[in-house]
Amino acid sequence: MRLVTVGSVAFDAIESPFGKTDKIVGGAGTFITLASSFFVKEQGIISVVGDDFPASTIENMKAKGIDIQGIQIKAGEKTFFWSGRYHNDMNSRDTLVTELNVLEHFNPIVPQAFQGADYLMLGNLSPQVQRMVIERMEKRPKLIAMDTMNFWMDIALEELKKTMALVDVLIINDEEARQLSGVYSLVKAAKVIRAMGPQIVIIKKGEHGALLFHEENMFFAPALPLEDVFDPTGAGDTFAGGFMGYIAATDDFSFENMKRAIIAGSALASFCVEKFGTQRLLELTKKELNARVKQFVTLGNFEMKEV
Amino acid sequence: MRLVTVGSVAFDAIESPFGKTDKIVGGAGTFITLASSFFVKEQGIISVVGDDFPASTIENMKAKGIDIQGIQIKAGEKTFFWSGRYHNDMNSRDTLVTELNVLEHFNPIVPQAFQGADYLMLGNLSPQVQRMVIERMEKRPKLIAMDTMNFWMDIALEELKKTMALVDVLIINDEEARQLSGVYSLVKAAKVIRAMGPQIVIIKKGEHGALLFHEENMFFAPALPLEDVFDPTGAGDTFAGGFMGYIAATDDFSFENMKRAIIAGSALASFCVEKFGTQRLLELTKKELNARVKQFVTLGNFEMKEV
Repeated sequence: MRLVTVGSVAFDAIESPFGKTDKIVGGAGTFITLASSFFVKEQGIISVVGDDFPASTIENMKAKGIDIQGIQIKAGEKTFFWSGRYHNDMNSRDTLVTELNVLEHFNPIVPQAFQGADYLMLGNLSPQVQRMVIERMEKRPKLIAMDTMNFWMDIALEELKKTMALVDVLIINDEEARQLSGVYSLVKAAKVIRAMGPQIVIIKKGEHGALLFHEENMFFAPALPLEDVFDPTGAGDTFAGGFMGYIAATDDFSFENMKRAIIAGSALASFCVEKFGTQRLLELTKKELNARVKQFVTLGNFEMKEV
Repeated sequence: MRLVTVGSVAFDAIESPFGKTDKIVGGAGTFITLASSFFVKEQGIISVVGDDFPASTIENMKAKGIDIQGIQIKAGEKTFFWSGRYHNDMNSRDTLVTELNVLEHFNPIVPQAFQGADYLMLGNLSPQVQRMVIERMEKRPKLIAMDTMNFWMDIALEELKKTMALVDVLIINDEEARQLSGVYSLVKAAKVIRAMGPQIVIIKKGEHGALLFHEENMFFAPALPLEDVFDPTGAGDTFAGGFMGYIAATDDFSFENMKRAIIAGSALASFCVEKFGTQRLLELTKKELNARVKQFVTLGNFEMKEV
């Protein structure tokens, strides 16, 4: 198997200046695997849901080539639920409800078919669960990437550091990078974080793009300036899934190829925000995606040698 | 004459987490002309100072090839003075003191030697003064660029709109673009602003780079991520001066060349913030500048056709 992802498959309810949803399908694992399915044909997901979760959604994942045998369905339990409200600027949000439900005692099981996978993506979850997955892989994957968030820095920093020490790539946003490192400059923050374990640090800046750091190399990918941002939920997971899916599909994590993977992730994320939840990603065609990749190429392109 | 700039030549006093200055030389006109002097050999400045302003500073401007006969020296009056304190993130600041002094009744005089100039840069000043300079040019320059700020939107919006209607390029920051247009999306904001007159809109996003809009074209230039930002004062003016100096020196305002001009301005601005006031720009060599331009080329460079 090329790529294994562990991450939540969940329900979200979203309020934004553009409208309000009922419970819709969300979760880091959902967005990550959906995004990576644009590139990688052979991938599996490890997750847990309650028996309230629609079987049709899991069937749809299968149809996208995602091996779902790592999804545990807990009889008599409820799926993880998150509800939030976005402010007018779409950059800040309030969490209205968090019901952990099945995630509270999530014991991730790695199916035999997933053993020997080349690439591992740890979606945002408790660092203990993320570490369990690493430990349960019989062969260490070539590249392990990890997403996390400020929540775990607040309540489980030591556990987070233990898991971070085991991974190759850390993907976090700018505020999280500052919190984790204790420094404001992102250049300095990346150095501090790289000393904690991950040799590759990707800092997501939302509408301001993303930065990639590896050794003395730095790459900046812009975000595509958009007329409307409809729902940012899942954009970070989509970015991570696009990145890791591209890396896994090309089986190349040279710095040059990581740049392309970041553009692939950024392009997917730019679609994700155009509609609520996973809707836009589900409709998206490879042709549309490639047209947007071209926009990214054009956006930052200039020819210059010296002044 | 190739380029004429109108803008303040002033005193600043700055407090930041890195230290505190006495009165040092600042002002939009100072930073703009200093930046553009890296490219354009024949330029003039229109400004006003009091007799408290050091003659040596004006001599230094002359030494940089800046024609200073447009600087009025008002006997018995004091130079414009601004004092501010930067917060820890260096992105927000409080104004501590603003003494308009000679700027209060500034009546800009265009010396005969400045008539016929090809390019005109209107540094941040009251829109009435900016418009007076346009009206006092006997021949309309090929390209007129204008910087402004939220202060004028708050107290002189109608005057600002009148001046904007006469210019080709508007250079403002993201918050100002949102205030002026009344919309949050910068893509939409640029459309609204272009309908007000300026066909070219440049939106500065500080540490997040800059956007250039012209017709259906959009270009994004990153800012160079820095280890330390020492003093952001004048960075926006330096950017504008670098942009306009590059355009004037190359005498080319095609979209492709405007991109290069933005990189030139961004590179100069990245030096400006390394020391207090104009200090770093005064020491800067062309060799250092070109090395930084190369860093900008590398920073956002990737090779990709499709996914």
